[in-house]
Amino acid sequence: MSQRKRVFFVSDRTGITVEALGSSLLTQFADVDFDRLTLPFIDSVDKAREVVAQVNAALRESGQRPLVFSSIVDDAVRTEINKADGLVLDVFERFIVPLENELGTKSTHAVGKSHSVSDVKDYNHRIEAINYTLSHDDGVTHRGLAEADIVLVGVSRSGKTPTCLYLAMQFGIKAANYPLIPEDLEANRLPPSLLPLKEKVWGLSISPERLHHIRTERRPDSTYAALDNCRYEVAAAEKLMRQAGIPFMDSTTKSIEEIATHMLHEAHLVRRVY
Amino acid sequence: MSQRKRVFFVSDRTGITVEALGSSLLTQFADVDFDRLTLPFIDSVDKAREVVAQVNAALRESGQRPLVFSSIVDDAVRTEINKADGLVLDVFERFIVPLENELGTKSTHAVGKSHSVSDVKDYNHRIEAINYTLSHDDGVTHRGLAEADIVLVGVSRSGKTPTCLYLAMQFGIKAANYPLIPEDLEANRLPPSLLPLKEKVWGLSISPERLHHIRTERRPDSTYAALDNCRYEVAAAEKLMRQAGIPFMDSTTKSIEEIATHMLHEAHLVRRVY
Repeated sequence: MSQRKRVFFVSDRTGITVEALGSSLLTQFADVDFDRLTLPFIDSVDKAREVVAQVNAALRESGQRPLVFSSIVDDAVRTEINKADGLVLDVFERFIVPLENELGTKSTHAVGKSHSVSDVKDYNHRIEAINYTLSHDDGVTHRGLAEADIVLVGVSRSGKTPTCLYLAMQFGIKAANYPLIPEDLEANRLPPSLLPLKEKVWGLSISPERLHHIRTERRPDSTYAALDNCRYEVAAAEKLMRQAGIPFMDSTTKSIEEIATHMLHEAHLVRRVY
Repeated sequence: MSQRKRVFFVSDRTGITVEALGSSLLTQFADVDFDRLTLPFIDSVDKAREVVAQVNAALRESGQRPLVFSSIVDDAVRTEINKADGLVLDVFERFIVPLENELGTKSTHAVGKSHSVSDVKDYNHRIEAINYTLSHDDGVTHRGLAEADIVLVGVSRSGKTPTCLYLAMQFGIKAANYPLIPEDLEANRLPPSLLPLKEKVWGLSISPERLHHIRTERRPDSTYAALDNCRYEVAAAEKLMRQAGIPFMDSTTKSIEEIATHMLHEAHLVRRVY
């Protein structure tokens, strides 16, 4: 019998949180192969019945009990999901009772309070930060740089843009980024327009091998992508940042989330979105 | 005594998942005021001791037991966190044992398998999708539109850009977007370059009042932001999309995550990142 285990992520909302939680738990079982399916917006008993039918069909097909990670606020919907022939682990169920006891109050059992536009302020902060970040990507303009919460520098393709976008989207941080171009590296100094902002400038570095790999996908066989050139640029950028007193982080073995979270905490940025 | 309850999110990684999970649970207690702090990268017993000291200090200051949502893989670190004078709810602890029993195998207890560059392929898909989306934002270019997984249309400020970026970042989807400008609305037809792609074009709409509000923040007292103009544009865009057979979604009461997740599922997009 195959070790390919069927996994369902079921949520009355987007399913993004329960999916992240479940996936993170599944990485603990490296020798099992999982086959995942996310079923979002399961907010009625009828929809829950369809989920149960899918889970039971998966059991019949695979001969193995599926795993079901769920997050369902409504008791009737959750009761239905619990009838599925699988291991159902509901996040809401496992945590809400200890929380109610601790807080000495009943929960409202209202679906959809999180990630909802009831939080218009959060939404506006995110949009504002995304717009800011997009219009200050890759040194596009110096105007308004003083408004930035953080300015990232680094060589081309060191991960500045995705990190900035993640900071904006997830935390509402206005993140500008500025490339270190060959002229800066040769002169061994920060781009002059960044000097007045030095205390909020952070750097990203990367291993020359990984940079070579990334740049090759973009421009194969170019000087830009050549390993020798990547070695030179990374060494020169790190030297420049060290001399200028700019703290920097190596992005090579980190995900976008990890880099962004490190920056948030180490630069003591104040997030506008929770 | 104040109802302001101290909450800690503690993780051996970024803390993003445990924060989302905890925040979503806390929205169930609308009458309690929470004061949140995230402590990421708690991956040693020493760091865990500092966390415990912070939690215990919060108890002394507030006179109330703090809540601690944690996700700690390492047993020694988790044992330390559990000593805190608060209600400690550890996600890993509560779910890993039932999973081990079900899968009939021990978990590896290895920290940092998720969100890590061990998954270089995911990382590359995300970066590629983000780059694609950035270079196909707001109708910047027609080139390569055929490569898009989805093309979003809508009036200016209806939420296209953040939705596309979220699709790219979270799911690795190549999402282009294209504005419906007054000329398109007047001619009552899709921009001609989109006609060959019609089956992957989706629309975003928005309430005229919300659009007016958003545009006013950007350009106060302009015709662009005037409520009458917003009413006209939204009505004309919806008419155009209906006639062209473009499915569309109202973004007014939805968060970026919700719109993106709806699109993913309703357009049957194939995600490249889990």
